[in-house]
Amino acid sequence: MVDASAQVRPGGRSAKVRAAVHRAVAELLAEEPAEALTIPAVAARAGVHATTVYRRWGSPAQLLTDVATSRFSGDVVVPDSGSLAGDLERWMEDVAVDLADPDTLALMRATIGSGPEGGCACTADRHAQLSAIIERERARGGDAPDVENAIDFLLGPLYYRAIFSGEPASGDWARRLVTTFLAASRALS
Amino acid sequence: MVDASAQVRPGGRSAKVRAAVHRAVAELLAEEPAEALTIPAVAARAGVHATTVYRRWGSPAQLLTDVATSRFSGDVVVPDSGSLAGDLERWMEDVAVDLADPDTLALMRATIGSGPEGGCACTADRHAQLSAIIERERARGGDAPDVENAIDFLLGPLYYRAIFSGEPASGDWARRLVTTFLAASRALS
Repeated sequence: MVDASAQVRPGGRSAKVRAAVHRAVAELLAEEPAEALTIPAVAARAGVHATTVYRRWGSPAQLLTDVATSRFSGDVVVPDSGSLAGDLERWMEDVAVDLADPDTLALMRATIGSGPEGGCACTADRHAQLSAIIERERARGGDAPDVENAIDFLLGPLYYRAIFSGEPASGDWARRLVTTFLAASRALS
Repeated sequence: MVDASAQVRPGGRSAKVRAAVHRAVAELLAEEPAEALTIPAVAARAGVHATTVYRRWGSPAQLLTDVATSRFSGDVVVPDSGSLAGDLERWMEDVAVDLADPDTLALMRATIGSGPEGGCACTADRHAQLSAIIERERARGGDAPDVENAIDFLLGPLYYRAIFSGEPASGDWARRLVTTFLAASRALS
């Protein structure tokens, strides 16, 4: 495993190469079928040597995992509306809006397709955000559901629609998932 | 779009080529990273000319969609246990067992990665089966939930775990999803 985060200084040459390569991946995925995303094609688009990309990322799978981890980290703000329902509704709507973007979906699909680690790279930060929302409700003294159940019944339907069913996942629908989940949690606890 | 189903007679030369190519795709995905799945590599493994594969399937994306549609159709039996809960539990457990197979996951990931139609090719028959289970309950005179809700809250968590979270999706857990979903449906209706 090549450590893509090694020796990166913001503004340094290494950081510039990383930014150019990440941008090249996003552009190629937006324009071409996923199978066109090869290391030589990325290097040519980024204006760097293919050996530089091979040395730093090793394979298309590792490159896509790095791009997805970066793209899906810190991009959605964890809200603080004062209530669990309000926080979850706003957050789910933001995630749903992101998942409605064709470029987001193209990156997610390609990353999943690149190997077993791809899916987690797309959602690891979502799990951390959901944990933070639920922890905050506990800190307020509220009775919050398990993170694991929230992942299953909130992120499960949302990402299933994005990747598998071709059904649109609107903000309204995402907010209703929260209402249903919280009502069901209360009914079942 | 190349029509892969045209002129296929069971046992004929066309059907034999199709079977050999489908087998070659499954073998390559089980052995190599997904990016190794190219039309020339599939043709070589299947013992046919690459032009034959290009002419019939057009691209790796169309080939994978054809393989996934075939692999995920009619492979899981729709049970008839006499009750909705029993039918759903048995069916969900069978789907969960299938999704625990590394070769199944490799085919699903590669098909998703190949393009926007890939995810639907993996689950279209699951939606048809779920509809059939729910229709049968209605025919029994039972009060069955909407198919759309069942897709969201049963298939959503199951496929999310398989592709995104890396958490094991055991048969027990899949059966508990059914219990939770049916209890929540009753509480909310």
